[in-house]
Amino acid sequence: MRSTDQQTVTVPPGLAGVVVTETELGDVRGAEGFYHYRQYSAIDLAEAVGFEAAWHLLLFGNLPEAGQLTAFSDRVGALRPMPDELAALLPAICATTDDALTIVRTALSLWGGIRRLRPLFDADPDSDEIVESALAAAAVTPTILAAAHRIRHGAEPIEADPTLGHVDDYLRMLTGARPNPHDLRAVEQYLVSTMDHGFNASTFTARVIASTGADLAACLVGAIGSFSGPKHGGAPSRALEALDEIGSLDHAEAYVRDKIERGDRVMGFGHAVYRTKDPRSEMLRRTALGYDDPLVDLAVGVEAIFERTLAELKPGRELFANVEYYAGVVMKLAGIDPSMFTPTFCVARVAGWTANIVEQSHDAKMIRPSARYVGPPPPQPLPVHAAPRA
Amino acid sequence: MRSTDQQTVTVPPGLAGVVVTETELGDVRGAEGFYHYRQYSAIDLAEAVGFEAAWHLLLFGNLPEAGQLTAFSDRVGALRPMPDELAALLPAICATTDDALTIVRTALSLWGGIRRLRPLFDADPDSDEIVESALAAAAVTPTILAAAHRIRHGAEPIEADPTLGHVDDYLRMLTGARPNPHDLRAVEQYLVSTMDHGFNASTFTARVIASTGADLAACLVGAIGSFSGPKHGGAPSRALEALDEIGSLDHAEAYVRDKIERGDRVMGFGHAVYRTKDPRSEMLRRTALGYDDPLVDLAVGVEAIFERTLAELKPGRELFANVEYYAGVVMKLAGIDPSMFTPTFCVARVAGWTANIVEQSHDAKMIRPSARYVGPPPPQPLPVHAAPRA
Repeated sequence: MRSTDQQTVTVPPGLAGVVVTETELGDVRGAEGFYHYRQYSAIDLAEAVGFEAAWHLLLFGNLPEAGQLTAFSDRVGALRPMPDELAALLPAICATTDDALTIVRTALSLWGGIRRLRPLFDADPDSDEIVESALAAAAVTPTILAAAHRIRHGAEPIEADPTLGHVDDYLRMLTGARPNPHDLRAVEQYLVSTMDHGFNASTFTARVIASTGADLAACLVGAIGSFSGPKHGGAPSRALEALDEIGSLDHAEAYVRDKIERGDRVMGFGHAVYRTKDPRSEMLRRTALGYDDPLVDLAVGVEAIFERTLAELKPGRELFANVEYYAGVVMKLAGIDPSMFTPTFCVARVAGWTANIVEQSHDAKMIRPSARYVGPPPPQPLPVHAAPRA
Repeated sequence: MRSTDQQTVTVPPGLAGVVVTETELGDVRGAEGFYHYRQYSAIDLAEAVGFEAAWHLLLFGNLPEAGQLTAFSDRVGALRPMPDELAALLPAICATTDDALTIVRTALSLWGGIRRLRPLFDADPDSDEIVESALAAAAVTPTILAAAHRIRHGAEPIEADPTLGHVDDYLRMLTGARPNPHDLRAVEQYLVSTMDHGFNASTFTARVIASTGADLAACLVGAIGSFSGPKHGGAPSRALEALDEIGSLDHAEAYVRDKIERGDRVMGFGHAVYRTKDPRSEMLRRTALGYDDPLVDLAVGVEAIFERTLAELKPGRELFANVEYYAGVVMKLAGIDPSMFTPTFCVARVAGWTANIVEQSHDAKMIRPSARYVGPPPPQPLPVHAAPRA
């Protein structure tokens, strides 16, 4: 008896390497240590352009010229304030949990209802409806996260200023003061470099939900769900905690040697896709070196000791500093509270998720794979104690 | 230049037939018109056992004997009341939207924070933590949905009664009165028959998120997101609206003929997997025939006219009444408001989703497929107007 009558295809565990969709948004080349948004190196972009320009590129496919960039910045600036109904409920949501990702997941779910989002499937293909929702969701996310952080610390939320740049305004809403140009540029580089990164688990989740035709908020809450998973990675505070634990370079070799000998992970090292240096980490090291701070010396020193010790103890193992490692250093030096490291990552990634949702909305095919039933063969008669009801 | 350096596998669009995982929970055999939970026919179960027994079977793998069933009913009954923090916030959530799935998505997201759910990945494998969360989520879902329905209609929510059966209590909380035994049995049959149904899009979404190790609420909000997608199917009110539009059997042939000739869908007919009669529809027709009501005569008559007209106009097309068709009829006759048809379906399916999440939590492998980049080859130099910043 067949366990299923559909023609089935057996593929590697976890769908590794299985092509689900085509995309024009970008890709990651793990062996080369290279990734790109559209046709541009993401690192070139992070070093050259601002958040809005990269966001425009991801969503619309081109780097905006000056006039286009101004119009786009005005458009997303106007979408940055929270709707009043959401702002009114946020304190009550924050009173139920300390977890920023749970708060933003709940808030964006609520936001979808407040915005009366319609299913992607029902949108008029000639209208701007889906793109407008995508922009609105990504625009309001930093406002929610900054307000939630302040509420959890007993401070009043600060309203968005639509005239400011996206990252500038996020840091102002978070800390209460405009960032200095050096900190702003450091954080903006980080955020541009983490907007998107190939077909990671949260991006895939967003596209699976989008393929059912559900509304944009439905896709985003699922993406945030996957993003919160410990295997998804991306918790820059863990790497910083490891540096704190090491404390000084004198202790680094003993710490690293002990971890490697026990087969434990050293937080901030290793990546699922990169088999060579993580280009984000390479860029963020340069960014960190723009700060004159002992934390930078410690981080650079520990990285060198890790690589040397790993080569000695486990020759041939390809583990390098990942994006988390210097991201935590850069965010700390730019004045961001460690509890906001992962939420800040989310401020960037929501631009990538929404661009992926918009792209997926053009594909009529639902993503619906199969499972193989491996239990006892049915149908078995019901046991006597489960006798039919009257 | 390769668009990716990972070994890629090309599979059918939408991952059709691609085996993502093994499962012991059940399967659907579309060509045979058969589906099962564990080793038992789901239809046999729906006709013989109550909601709690089938729920226990899905989650634990066995049909409980009398003592086990009592203990299980007590356990889930105790989990049915909403936490006070959620009950306090629900009216404010309901004030922002009329959409019941948006409300339950937001409420379960909040609930996850209130319950302090930990990532699946962090749970002690010897503890009951994940199973307890799974039971609690499925237990509280009908309470949320019934309360939201009452709040949206200006009525006071009714508190759960842990001593009642799950479906009995749901109908009481929804309508304000205990259902008569005939209505209760009709709705319970429907709910047992729709708890799970192979590897549908919402179930797959729940498992993708679970594979990242995220908490159970993160998995559920994603599942509800996919469930709300128009392509996921399952909107029994649409089929009932079509019957309302037809009005009487005299108009049925003209209505059906017109739809088929135009190539339009007749709501309530056709299914993505079944190539023969949908066994749920067959069972629910029998359930509907237990009511002496003109709506049943209309539904049975329209079904026969549809099949005859389709055979005449499109010989060989395999379209049959699906689960929506008689589900709407049965729920209406049992006194459920049409706006609650899809939410009531959700009361059943959350038992399936949570069983799938628990099963997925035993698999360490993250589900992470690939996309194929098809845009212009990178890296291109940045355009002149995107000149590097200072």
